Amino acid sequence: MPEMRRRGLLIILSSPSGAGKSTLARRLMAWDASLSFSVSATTRNPRPGEEDGREYYFRSRPEFEAMVAAGEMLEHAEVFGNLYGTPSAPVEARLAEGRDVILDIDWQGGQQVRRSRLAQDVVSIFILPPSIADLERRLRMRAQDSDEVIAGRMAKSRDEISHWGEYDYVVINRDIAASEAELVTILQAERARAVRQPGLTEFVRGLNREFEAR
Amino acid sequence: MPEMRRRGLLIILSSPSGAGKSTLARRLMAWDASLSFSVSATTRNPRPGEEDGREYYFRSRPEFEAMVAAGEMLEHAEVFGNLYGTPSAPVEARLAEGRDVILDIDWQGGQQVRRSRLAQDVVSIFILPPSIADLERRLRMRAQDSDEVIAGRMAKSRDEISHWGEYDYVVINRDIAASEAELVTILQAERARAVRQPGLTEFVRGLNREFEAR
Repeated sequence: MPEMRRRGLLIILSSPSGAGKSTLARRLMAWDASLSFSVSATTRNPRPGEEDGREYYFRSRPEFEAMVAAGEMLEHAEVFGNLYGTPSAPVEARLAEGRDVILDIDWQGGQQVRRSRLAQDVVSIFILPPSIADLERRLRMRAQDSDEVIAGRMAKSRDEISHWGEYDYVVINRDIAASEAELVTILQAERARAVRQPGLTEFVRGLNREFEAR
Repeated sequence: MPEMRRRGLLIILSSPSGAGKSTLARRLMAWDASLSFSVSATTRNPRPGEEDGREYYFRSRPEFEAMVAAGEMLEHAEVFGNLYGTPSAPVEARLAEGRDVILDIDWQGGQQVRRSRLAQDVVSIFILPPSIADLERRLRMRAQDSDEVIAGRMAKSRDEISHWGEYDYVVINRDIAASEAELVTILQAERARAVRQPGLTEFVRGLNREFEAR
């Protein structure tokens, strides 16, 4: 029913780092250009080359806290002394236009979004690595981090993985193309759900007018 | 994750008669031979050529009522003086084997199954006709019924259609191949749901053993 207006999906994508989540998200956006990443807000300073509204919305701590107090953050958390969060307004605007939004957040953010007023739009997907050896290999390939940094990431990964059961779907990323196909299938089916299709009400009204006219 | 054992899906397929539901169900079974129709029980007499356990389980009224009293019917209803119902045991056995079962039932049966102990296995799909003119044309093509019989069927169809909002998915059957593809997508995504994958618990246990061994 592609001609029917629908609300967008709010796609929560979580995984331990190194499981291939960013690659999969990029491939989803290549598959459907109307998909977009949500841009987070943060109180950390911009790095060289980062632009406000592109990598992050850069906000002062008082500005950020005022947004939280006003209920303008879908979720937020403090990480290493900086606040990070998802501003609601741009997400809600895109969902209302029928565009799907990807939230790249951890299990704590996921829990907050599932309890937010956008709960009905949520489709949550957890990406698992095929093995921990594989996860560690990808982490080491990606950066020349010290063993200590790697160990810290691995501990965080274990904590993240323990929350897989809170997600609607779990994809084991053994093969990137197979995982992409699985994600596409999930999104197509979720888009077909009756609850995403406000146009159905009008369609059935049309059928009823036809019954009346017989 | 095809190598993981999962529970089967309990697929409720409802539609007004003439919307193409039986054709679609047959095509789904051709797509995946492990899919099967649930065989209903009935108190009506067998017609020539009908076999007990193939078209229906033929039961006496006291036998049928005893099954209902014992909680052995997933759903049942009285239609034109005969009882019809879905015996739970064969359905539960197939779901436990990881096989998907199609229930061809109306909205009343659907409501009962959604409230049964198999609620978590349910995926409910409603098939709508593209128009009422189309529905009537297919009904007239199918049998040389009198205008009165057709009128009765159309009234029942209108009642059935009014319940579309109770279903997880709604498919407008404009084109049989497109509708089949939509159903296949729905089943593939539903099979990937975390709740259908009991094997995931064991998989994550394996990841944790790998963490321990580092």
